Amino acid sequence: MNRPSPETRDRYPYFLAIATRWTDNDVYGHVNNAVYYSYFDTVVNHYLVERGALDIATSTVVGLVVDSACQYFSPIAFPDTVYAGLRVGKLGRSSIRYEVGVFRNNEPQASAQGHFVHVCVDRPSGRAVSISLTLRAALEPLLPQPR
Amino acid sequence: MNRPSPETRDRYPYFLAIATRWTDNDVYGHVNNAVYYSYFDTVVNHYLVERGALDIATSTVVGLVVDSACQYFSPIAFPDTVYAGLRVGKLGRSSIRYEVGVFRNNEPQASAQGHFVHVCVDRPSGRAVSISLTLRAALEPLLPQPR
Amino acid sequence: MNRPSPETRDRYPYFLAIATRWTDNDVYGHVNNAVYYSYFDTVVNHYLVERGALDIATSTVVGLVVDSACQYFSPIAFPDTVYAGLRVGKLGRSSIRYEVGVFRNNEPQASAQGHFVHVCVDRPSGRAVSISLTLRAALEPLLPQPR
Amino acid sequence: MNRPSPETRDRYPYFLAIATRWTDNDVYGHVNNAVYYSYFDTVVNHYLVERGALDIATSTVVGLVVDSACQYFSPIAFPDTVYAGLRVGKLGRSSIRYEVGVFRNNEPQASAQGHFVHVCVDRPSGRAVSISLTLRAALEPLLPQPR
Repeated sequence: MNRPSPETRDRYPYFLAIATRWTDNDVYGHVNNAVYYSYFDTVVNHYLVERGALDIATSTVVGLVVDSACQYFSPIAFPDTVYAGLRVGKLGRSSIRYEVGVFRNNEPQASAQGHFVHVCVDRPSGRAVSISLTLRAALEPLLPQPR
Repeated sequence: MNRPSPETRDRYPYFLAIATRWTDNDVYGHVNNAVYYSYFDTVVNHYLVERGALDIATSTVVGLVVDSACQYFSPIAFPDTVYAGLRVGKLGRSSIRYEVGVFRNNEPQASAQGHFVHVCVDRPSGRAVSISLTLRAALEPLLPQPR
Repeated sequence: MNRPSPETRDRYPYFLAIATRWTDNDVYGHVNNAVYYSYFDTVVNHYLVERGALDIATSTVVGLVVDSACQYFSPIAFPDTVYAGLRVGKLGRSSIRYEVGVFRNNEPQASAQGHFVHVCVDRPSGRAVSISLTLRAALEPLLPQPR
Repeated sequence: MNRPSPETRDRYPYFLAIATRWTDNDVYGHVNNAVYYSYFDTVVNHYLVERGALDIATSTVVGLVVDSACQYFSPIAFPDTVYAGLRVGKLGRSSIRYEVGVFRNNEPQASAQGHFVHVCVDRPSGRAVSISLTLRAALEPLLPQPR
């Protein structure tokens, strides 16, 4: 198994602080594995709304998740604060790979990291469509920068 | 129906900022009514852990919720930030009434307000027990102050 | 405190079986208090969709929750099955009081019971509107029957 | 991208019916991607409790999730019923790969499929331990059968 290593914060250009919630913990006293994906959703859509690239109420083009994955390195527990780091791993014609690192409090290494892939779909027709220029412009700062 | 009016922030001595999440919104584009109760849980337990009055992993006395209620005045939606205000409405021998106001971003009036009642229960026996001195001391600053 | 007693199944004309989920349990090993409200939402909206009284995707009139409450009598835990009983406590001009009993497995008495109040609101204008004839007809069988 | 095809029900030896919930739908009217992972958790732990291989309250060995992934083929929406199919993809010394197919109502092909990997950990020490004989015996019927 080629298990990746935890990444550091400098790998992510954008961060959002997310307060953990009492109900994020499962019976074992740690944030449940499914909850990490709601952190992923939250940082991505927060970024998009903030940049004016997503108007939830009126947008006719939506991002459908076709694939997601997460590796978990060390536990997080309420009342920790999560810092969700975001970058774009790949920007295709109609699909976007968002990569997220989940950092606990002020720890330098990710507690978990993962990704999901959005395909841009026109809601009325259900068809994949090209990423709009507005969205593409919003996402470009999140792409890996040439060194 | 004697519906209460929205309260203002000065009615609550303690606040916690809680980032809304993408999945807090239901299909109508507003934070779902059930999610407010998870804000309630979160501000209460955050306060208790922070004051050293609750050690989730080792405590043998736990607070069981026997009653809860909420009135909703105006909607909240992702990506708003919630400021959950907390006070203690009543401190009995073994029960505590927590009252919570949910404020949207920097709005002065509550978007929703509610309460829940905890009964302190000894986990091994399942019996109600007196509130510990540590917990009582942590809660007293949250009681309404004499004017 | 005039705390109500647990009701029996015959008080509810409609039931929905809901599988509890691993994440319904909180760190104390019981279904978290907020999750009961998602059972409430689920039984109500399931009934409405099933009766053709709610088309989630196209409806311009939606039910906004203005008030909710729950009393908890005895714990439920994953992997229990919840049977959510539903009745309508009050049917006004534009508001509906839904009352829900939450029964654990085959137990005769409710583990919890509560209610929420929907106000019918026209989404474009945000105004309260009269309950439609279709919705009223769907709800009448859930009203307490004359004896 | 080597995207897998949707599987059929015969690939899974065990099924659990899970009622979708109102709040499973996100603002786009479909079950949110993170919720599928709570179906995964639910079918696995339901199976384990049912077989006597997991006593949530007393077990000192727990399964920690180190890796999870899901591919989504077609949407599910409340009030659909989910049938979660379960098999064990790999049974190591201390780790288990659970594979889950998510089927909508009576559809023959999976709407989504994925997996997660549990590592058995002794809670007091935090160390990985061998899978117990009880657990191994419970899991063997879920392994792919020789043809």
